[in-house]
Amino acid sequence: MDEDVKVCLTEREIPRKWYNIQADLPHPLPPPLGKDGKPIGPEALAPVFPMNLIEQEVSTKRWHAIPEPILEVYRLWRPSPLRRARRLEKALKTPAKIYYKDESVSPPGSHKANTAVAQAYYNREFGIKRLATETGAGQWGCALSLGCKLMGLECKVYMVRISFDQKPFRKMMMRMWGGQCVASPSMETQAGRTILQQQPNTPGSLAIAISEAIEDAVTSKDTRYALGSVLNHVLMHQTVIGLETQKQMKKIGLYPDVVIGCAGGGSNFAGMAFPFVADRIHGKSVRILAVEPAACPTLTRGPFAYDSGDVAMMTPLLAMHTLGHAFVPAPIHAGGLRYHGMAPLVSHVLREGLIEAAALPQTECYEAAMLFANTEGFIPAPETSHAIAAAIREAKRATEEGKERIILFNYSGHGLMDLNGYEAYLNGKLTDYELPDQELQTSLKCLEGLPKPPPLQG
Amino acid sequence: MDEDVKVCLTEREIPRKWYNIQADLPHPLPPPLGKDGKPIGPEALAPVFPMNLIEQEVSTKRWHAIPEPILEVYRLWRPSPLRRARRLEKALKTPAKIYYKDESVSPPGSHKANTAVAQAYYNREFGIKRLATETGAGQWGCALSLGCKLMGLECKVYMVRISFDQKPFRKMMMRMWGGQCVASPSMETQAGRTILQQQPNTPGSLAIAISEAIEDAVTSKDTRYALGSVLNHVLMHQTVIGLETQKQMKKIGLYPDVVIGCAGGGSNFAGMAFPFVADRIHGKSVRILAVEPAACPTLTRGPFAYDSGDVAMMTPLLAMHTLGHAFVPAPIHAGGLRYHGMAPLVSHVLREGLIEAAALPQTECYEAAMLFANTEGFIPAPETSHAIAAAIREAKRATEEGKERIILFNYSGHGLMDLNGYEAYLNGKLTDYELPDQELQTSLKCLEGLPKPPPLQG
Repeated sequence: MDEDVKVCLTEREIPRKWYNIQADLPHPLPPPLGKDGKPIGPEALAPVFPMNLIEQEVSTKRWHAIPEPILEVYRLWRPSPLRRARRLEKALKTPAKIYYKDESVSPPGSHKANTAVAQAYYNREFGIKRLATETGAGQWGCALSLGCKLMGLECKVYMVRISFDQKPFRKMMMRMWGGQCVASPSMETQAGRTILQQQPNTPGSLAIAISEAIEDAVTSKDTRYALGSVLNHVLMHQTVIGLETQKQMKKIGLYPDVVIGCAGGGSNFAGMAFPFVADRIHGKSVRILAVEPAACPTLTRGPFAYDSGDVAMMTPLLAMHTLGHAFVPAPIHAGGLRYHGMAPLVSHVLREGLIEAAALPQTECYEAAMLFANTEGFIPAPETSHAIAAAIREAKRATEEGKERIILFNYSGHGLMDLNGYEAYLNGKLTDYELPDQELQTSLKCLEGLPKPPPLQG
Repeated sequence: MDEDVKVCLTEREIPRKWYNIQADLPHPLPPPLGKDGKPIGPEALAPVFPMNLIEQEVSTKRWHAIPEPILEVYRLWRPSPLRRARRLEKALKTPAKIYYKDESVSPPGSHKANTAVAQAYYNREFGIKRLATETGAGQWGCALSLGCKLMGLECKVYMVRISFDQKPFRKMMMRMWGGQCVASPSMETQAGRTILQQQPNTPGSLAIAISEAIEDAVTSKDTRYALGSVLNHVLMHQTVIGLETQKQMKKIGLYPDVVIGCAGGGSNFAGMAFPFVADRIHGKSVRILAVEPAACPTLTRGPFAYDSGDVAMMTPLLAMHTLGHAFVPAPIHAGGLRYHGMAPLVSHVLREGLIEAAALPQTECYEAAMLFANTEGFIPAPETSHAIAAAIREAKRATEEGKERIILFNYSGHGLMDLNGYEAYLNGKLTDYELPDQELQTSLKCLEGLPKPPPLQG
């Protein structure tokens, strides 16, 4: 079995439960706070999310059964293959074995579909008819459009104006799946109209788009808001990735020495990593590595602090690693990793010492992605290239140390809609950007006056 | 097992041999003819193709072993899944079971990779260092760029100017895999320079690009030409599709009542169909249907005649269904189906009564593709949509007749690089074009004076 380059499971082996890491945390997650600095209860989120998802958000139950209608959709592309990158290993002349879990096989081309389908389902069960969301590069807008289509909901996507104009293909994908995508800021919300009045030519931002989507959700009939990363329930839906991978590794009688994922909001990383973090909590020896861009080094250089999820501070305060909600990341091509914060659960397990983090420059990531495409054939998303670059670093270290190490990474998505980034790289037009310390300090000033998370106890 | 929506095989179950239908034909294929109207021998092709591929082209041996270095690359994406379109079935309320073989899972996103890898390998074995080819929409140029990269060859692609300008993503993909893609006509060949002198603003054509690629091959050191469809050896490489599908059908204890593929040059159709044609020759009851666009109805309205593969008549004369080498197909979005001729082997088995053919209008195909994307999730290539539309017709007929029919089609490629066609369809900008009889008659005049194929004997 070890000779195969793909480890496949039958559909009956798709995990039937999601894993909730909140059940196993050595210390509990600091609670989200309201504007008054006091912990908020589930009811505060009710205008924005359906109660069944809010229950998942605050749950400390270890396992949550995946409902059959979600499994039925998962079966369209799951179980996803676990592939061995034999040709990459050979090119690197490494004794390490490199495995990658291929989440690019979903219809929208990334792991985002795993939670999009789940969120659409739970909203439908709660009687919701329509979801509103924001999207930056477009991955999440596509995934939610598909999820809503398959669950029979309407979907409205506020897409950052500059991406709306630059990425027409993502917009077309959403439309094919029935998603109604508008450029943000739009004339359809008060938030959008206000900004357009002040800055008619604004390129938009994720923060503005979030404001519009939330306003839409709380003011429209039978509508709720959906988020593609960061929140606890989103990360939990993604654990189907790591749980499936564990079955596949078990099938070939191997266990990884290191588990790697790229991290923007944290959902693909957590989806792969958390089931392995659980193993680690229960005594297993495994390194777990989150990889972020050097231009947006949330985990490696941002403090663990209470901060808002958006610039306008419409969300509750979350305890997380953050560069400050006023931070504007440099325009690197891995749009999905350009977020000032990090999922509270990912931030928390880093603080607990259960995972490591590294920040990589984008040219090293593109170089890694090119080597991958020219050996394994497949073209990775710019976000995914960060995981590949880290895996290659690990493989080189294994070579130096003469160790036959097992390296596992999450191949979160394909790059077929992101080829212009590669073009820029091949034309020598991409540069690396290391966040200057002064800029970081300036950005962090926006955290002054906000409550501080309590230290880890015991 | 029948409950699963995917039928998966292990890598050890990838077919180890290609099937050569020339071994089983009731009547032999009429030979290719030279300019003098006499059959040409293998040596006439030697400046253009390596001898090992020419041997495959003329072989009547039933099975050809797939060399291990090709299998090693196939394992990156093969065995490809056979999927059951349960959600589509449900939407159609049909008693039919619809299965599709998913060839979109290869790195370039279509079946073309199956022969690209093989052709690159055989050329390398023959000592060739570089391949030249033409590409229309870009699918084949991408596949051959990948094949050459993985086999260590250089690759030069002459891409029809209008596609080169309109489809920058395909060009970027080729570049990522090391393919050197230039707009055709180019200044790099005599053929290109001559045309540019006469028509500096020409949008180019496949015929011009073929002329440039062949000139490049015969005048450059260690270079040969590669073709992505039409020829016997290309079709044989694609039979890995049908052979694999037969194993998968056997695994679930089913056999198709009808096998469907779209047909442009004929390679994806033949790859799926020929192993089933063999079954039919040996007495099995199965219908086999080639689907072409109404705008380019080669099999349904073109005569079986000797004709050239290109406008400039640089290729030998092939006995095939043809609309005449002077035919210029309407600019439908399924660029891969816009070819005046049809593979001689596909044409021949139609003439033998072993397969059927149908021509469908493009709006019906887009409507079918939309239904598919909104039920199964995946977005098909415009070419593939022809097979889907035909499968839906068959399913509706099964409903009317109350028959639990097994329908199988080849899902030849995904449409992620072709979303503008869908956009045009959704905007109501696509019209149907049925080739007027007068236009066909005018085009067929170019066949006058050419030799006629002999009638089938016995």
